[in-house]
Amino acid sequence: MRAVMLYGPGDIRVEDRPDPAIQSPTDAIVRLAATCICGSDLWPYRGVDSFDQPVPFGHEYAGTVEEVGSDVRTVRPGQFVIGSFFASDNTCEICRAGYQSSCVHRQGVGGAQAQRLRVPLADGTLVATPEVPSDDIVPSLLAASDVLGTGWFAALAAAAGPGKTVAVVGDGAVGLLGVLAANQLGAERVIAMSRHGARQKLALDFGATDIVTERGDEGVARIKELTGGLGAHSVIEAVGTQESMMQAIRSTRPGGHVGYVGVAHGVELPGRELFFSHVHLHGGPAPVRRFLPELIDLIYGRQIGPGEVFDLEIPLDQAAEGYRAMDERRAIKALLWP
Amino acid sequence: MRAVMLYGPGDIRVEDRPDPAIQSPTDAIVRLAATCICGSDLWPYRGVDSFDQPVPFGHEYAGTVEEVGSDVRTVRPGQFVIGSFFASDNTCEICRAGYQSSCVHRQGVGGAQAQRLRVPLADGTLVATPEVPSDDIVPSLLAASDVLGTGWFAALAAAAGPGKTVAVVGDGAVGLLGVLAANQLGAERVIAMSRHGARQKLALDFGATDIVTERGDEGVARIKELTGGLGAHSVIEAVGTQESMMQAIRSTRPGGHVGYVGVAHGVELPGRELFFSHVHLHGGPAPVRRFLPELIDLIYGRQIGPGEVFDLEIPLDQAAEGYRAMDERRAIKALLWP
Repeated sequence: MRAVMLYGPGDIRVEDRPDPAIQSPTDAIVRLAATCICGSDLWPYRGVDSFDQPVPFGHEYAGTVEEVGSDVRTVRPGQFVIGSFFASDNTCEICRAGYQSSCVHRQGVGGAQAQRLRVPLADGTLVATPEVPSDDIVPSLLAASDVLGTGWFAALAAAAGPGKTVAVVGDGAVGLLGVLAANQLGAERVIAMSRHGARQKLALDFGATDIVTERGDEGVARIKELTGGLGAHSVIEAVGTQESMMQAIRSTRPGGHVGYVGVAHGVELPGRELFFSHVHLHGGPAPVRRFLPELIDLIYGRQIGPGEVFDLEIPLDQAAEGYRAMDERRAIKALLWP
Repeated sequence: MRAVMLYGPGDIRVEDRPDPAIQSPTDAIVRLAATCICGSDLWPYRGVDSFDQPVPFGHEYAGTVEEVGSDVRTVRPGQFVIGSFFASDNTCEICRAGYQSSCVHRQGVGGAQAQRLRVPLADGTLVATPEVPSDDIVPSLLAASDVLGTGWFAALAAAAGPGKTVAVVGDGAVGLLGVLAANQLGAERVIAMSRHGARQKLALDFGATDIVTERGDEGVARIKELTGGLGAHSVIEAVGTQESMMQAIRSTRPGGHVGYVGVAHGVELPGRELFFSHVHLHGGPAPVRRFLPELIDLIYGRQIGPGEVFDLEIPLDQAAEGYRAMDERRAIKALLWP
């Protein structure tokens, strides 16, 4: 099969690799209908996260089950399924509390930018759609695999809901889908922070009520100005840098909530400032599995169209161009057709 | 009147000072029935927090209203009242959300280790008891002014409640009253972390079900051992150091809650570890005002006896001995009779 490999910073190659095979009786093999490039893939692409050898890449996937191990009970060949970047048993105490991405048996799922993928713990990880989807919603279902589920978790962690003003730091796909989630959860006002025309437009399509172009201290000041000097009730952080975390914390009113899902890079939170900020802080790797059934329903009902974040759709073999386009912020998110 | 002054590290003096007077029409003057020394007073006493000149000290108080400013409506001379270390209007949006210690008009209340105290924003700050209390509950009412309210906030921030295992980092008065609060809130199991006999005993009196004597990494390992390898659902942090914060975060299971109320000193939270810990983090200066009516009811009903934290009761004039006893951990908390 064809698969995307990262050889080093900026060096993406699409190669022939052996098809994956069942390794454990709880595995499933999925033939991908679509896969994509994640904002978090850009950290290693840019050399910020390092590794020793060429690695298969990608962790977002939706497609058809081809084969299952002998212990798999809840999914079967022919079903269209979606899963998340962490495989989970979905039965341990942590999973039952809704934190499947910290499952006691969790396993990373890697190498999803390919034609086929082995998914461990298939029963706990994969969620089948009601029927084989029509082509038009495949991108939205793929978005549910990570960026939609992550934006959804961020909005919940930020306690977005009726009567709330929500600010969103980060205008990547996750931030934009945080806007969509906050809107779906009934937020009164959703402030997208972006200085990029196409992203601003998509934020408005997803339900943003305000756009703020300032960032850093000026962004904080602007959020305060828009909220009677108090700060937003809820702030979604979807970047993962020191600046974005502090911007999020400082944009939140005392007693408010910061939901942070940008994978932290070089972040050190000053304890004293955090203490007096009085914010609630919650986040981490989104337990996407928790939300998949609900998100699939919303997509099948055409109530949400998160697939709009894919503004570049290319064949898998052109993955390198997808990385370049995202790295240069020419594309919000690139979908790869296997 | 007599008042406690801090002249420098380790240098506590009790002096004659002018009686406080009404400065603003929203002030009240309270004649203190009792006051006390806070664990947080030890930071400046030890020279960790510095200041430029001798300062009046103390921020915990309960007593009788002697005089009120012309705008004060809800308390009147003769009433027995309790207030918190931050004066609040109790009407702004932040107060109404329950975060009175971040009131947009908040003012610090200082100099409470004295015979009389001026309290700003009296209507929003002071809560009158149903009647003048009998002497036996005065220490408990005084405890409500800070340490009980702070332990209560920590337990709520840690989401202590039925079915939960709560661990408490810190065996000072706040940690011990965090144990009491967790127990009152219905926690199934309350693990006090202490290696000090008298404090262990008080923790058990307040409802602790387990005592853990290990600290740091060993303390974390012991909490995991007691919770099926997962960590506690809820952890109260009542110290404020890097070690205690990390001990609290690492003792908490993914999806669990850390309630932190130890005033942060030199704390820097590593973003990456926090991200993958999946904990909820909330804390800061406790909005004691929110809890005062409920706490006063519980004390009048003899359902809780938080005054037990005072294991040293001395005249105000002997305040220096109270500081020494707490600094050397000979006393948990010293009550000063004015």
